[in-house]
Amino acid sequence: MSETFSTSFELLATDSGTAARRGRLHTRRGVIETPAFMPVGTQGTVKGMLPEQLHEVGAQIILSNTYHLYLRPGHELVRRLGGLHGFMQWDGPILTDSGGFQVFSLGDLRRIEEEGVRFQSHLDGSSHLLTPESSVAIQEALGADIMMVFDECIPHPAARDYVAASTARSTRWAARSKAARTDGTAALFGIVQGGMEQDLRRQSAEQLMEIGFDGYALGGLSVGEAAEVMYRVMEWTLPLLPADQPRYVMGVGTPENLVEAVARGADMFDCVMPTRNARNGVLFTSFGKLSIKQNRYREDDGPIDPECDCTVCRRFSRAYLRHLYQSNEILASVLNTWHNLYYYLKLMRQMREAIETGSFARFRAEFYRQRDATGEA
Amino acid sequence: MSETFSTSFELLATDSGTAARRGRLHTRRGVIETPAFMPVGTQGTVKGMLPEQLHEVGAQIILSNTYHLYLRPGHELVRRLGGLHGFMQWDGPILTDSGGFQVFSLGDLRRIEEEGVRFQSHLDGSSHLLTPESSVAIQEALGADIMMVFDECIPHPAARDYVAASTARSTRWAARSKAARTDGTAALFGIVQGGMEQDLRRQSAEQLMEIGFDGYALGGLSVGEAAEVMYRVMEWTLPLLPADQPRYVMGVGTPENLVEAVARGADMFDCVMPTRNARNGVLFTSFGKLSIKQNRYREDDGPIDPECDCTVCRRFSRAYLRHLYQSNEILASVLNTWHNLYYYLKLMRQMREAIETGSFARFRAEFYRQRDATGEA
Repeated sequence: MSETFSTSFELLATDSGTAARRGRLHTRRGVIETPAFMPVGTQGTVKGMLPEQLHEVGAQIILSNTYHLYLRPGHELVRRLGGLHGFMQWDGPILTDSGGFQVFSLGDLRRIEEEGVRFQSHLDGSSHLLTPESSVAIQEALGADIMMVFDECIPHPAARDYVAASTARSTRWAARSKAARTDGTAALFGIVQGGMEQDLRRQSAEQLMEIGFDGYALGGLSVGEAAEVMYRVMEWTLPLLPADQPRYVMGVGTPENLVEAVARGADMFDCVMPTRNARNGVLFTSFGKLSIKQNRYREDDGPIDPECDCTVCRRFSRAYLRHLYQSNEILASVLNTWHNLYYYLKLMRQMREAIETGSFARFRAEFYRQRDATGEA
Repeated sequence: MSETFSTSFELLATDSGTAARRGRLHTRRGVIETPAFMPVGTQGTVKGMLPEQLHEVGAQIILSNTYHLYLRPGHELVRRLGGLHGFMQWDGPILTDSGGFQVFSLGDLRRIEEEGVRFQSHLDGSSHLLTPESSVAIQEALGADIMMVFDECIPHPAARDYVAASTARSTRWAARSKAARTDGTAALFGIVQGGMEQDLRRQSAEQLMEIGFDGYALGGLSVGEAAEVMYRVMEWTLPLLPADQPRYVMGVGTPENLVEAVARGADMFDCVMPTRNARNGVLFTSFGKLSIKQNRYREDDGPIDPECDCTVCRRFSRAYLRHLYQSNEILASVLNTWHNLYYYLKLMRQMREAIETGSFARFRAEFYRQRDATGEA
């Protein structure tokens, strides 16, 4: 990769009826066609999936977690072993979060200061301080192609005063994150906070744009608010962001959430839902969710989803997948994850095609029609 | 497959210095080059491995367990879903055990009668009776290409009187197993018992040969006896068996056990050791066993085994595999199993080549020399 590379975004098409966008994000490790979903690989592996299986299901980029890798095996170790790409043998782009979300989730085990967050490891109780500077240094050591600024993911509900103070601090941290970056070939995205307050979201977005980032994320969503509230925050915020830069809605969401977020102009997503649900036997299909452990699938020789052409649906029956799940077999997690990721990534591909061909409104209507027809969602 | 197919064995070569044999077993679902190792797929899956990964590591045949599949999901269900081959999508030969070993392992939960064994399910406590007739019926429902007679795996140590009575009963059960078979295209193997008593082993072998089977197994080994005792039983028994039929040593063993058993004229093996050890982070290498969780591998960027050319060794470092194991990741089990099975199956391939080329003695010496050189075994 060139010393002078910098991440860029092409806006290829926009939908006429909605804010949906079709774009192309050029990172130093390759191109990401947007809208895109990023499978989550928390500990240097998307649980149960080999790198080539991630390619097969259509993953263009994966997300990994700074907090977990900082604690184990340690970012300096990962750096010495070829960065996360070499370590886990994934050759596509990697986005790392800042560690903020996990650190704030620790509750009593963490204390917020202006400098950063002091916390105790969930693994061994050891004390640590994560700051905007150390977060960026860790992400650089991991070799992230897209880094995220260190911020606070504000819980919901939260008092307006707290939201205002936290958002202002996150903006200061965003500026420090940018200043801490030593390698401009990796992208750094700002994260808009502001809770469910329209004016604070606007203020956050404007201040971040003033600092200037390679892309902008919406943080603090999917934290327990109603879907309509989430969509409203997107409607307030996404149009404020630069049209020629990527927009990433963090931690979202269900297939419905993805369709609605794309309709509101979002380009990138990540969520543990397809992978975590897979391990719990919950599968995503064109007609909604399906719980494979149910007795009704005991002798069902059909595929998970008759509309799906993934490797799992082409070969294995619901009855076999139910047996594997009931028997607590490793292959249950592997095959369920494979299918769910394929479902999510195919959904994104379908949306990209629909936006390109001017048929996003029809796609969206059909998406809901299929679910309503069976009532299984 | 033809109605008139019957399993056959070609003896291709014999070693001049030992009893090692190179053979070819023709089953109704394909050919097995011997000596061969059969990965264990207890519940209709070799834990963590996709069928194509089993092919990639060189599996020619897998073993599955009658007891487990009878209880869950049930052999009739498996039959309706295309047999075990269709159910789990493995197109190679399958050998099923008789269920005897698992049933006898239930201890207080089972009672032996002349008719068969009454036992309670380890899953739900329900009562069942497994007989030679029902065992064969279950194995036929599963679609096994090689079935095993129902017998008692005698614990060790055991009083001679018990061994004699049990072995005589197992022989009666073997005759009943043969009589119960309805489809001659699947092979049925007899199982020589007799504990660690030479005359009883001989008697068992002679009586089974009189009944007549498609192959002969040694049962009741690897039950806690010293390796030298195990080898002695092989030396007593294997030469008694027909040279033109396959000889299967059940539940054996370590790499060393396999080399020694091949040297004594055994053709087929199964063992949970490569797969179970893999899930516990114990890896087989050309220099002996390696426990991947050890701190010494923390930053080790080398492969598990520098002599190994498996997919895992070509791509992933010990440091990464240690990280996956320490993090309790699914991929740890997948990759460790992949490597261990490859190691076992490559060992068999090397022995086949050595016997073919008249270099088995040299192979065996080199096998031990590599281990002694490092002292890691």
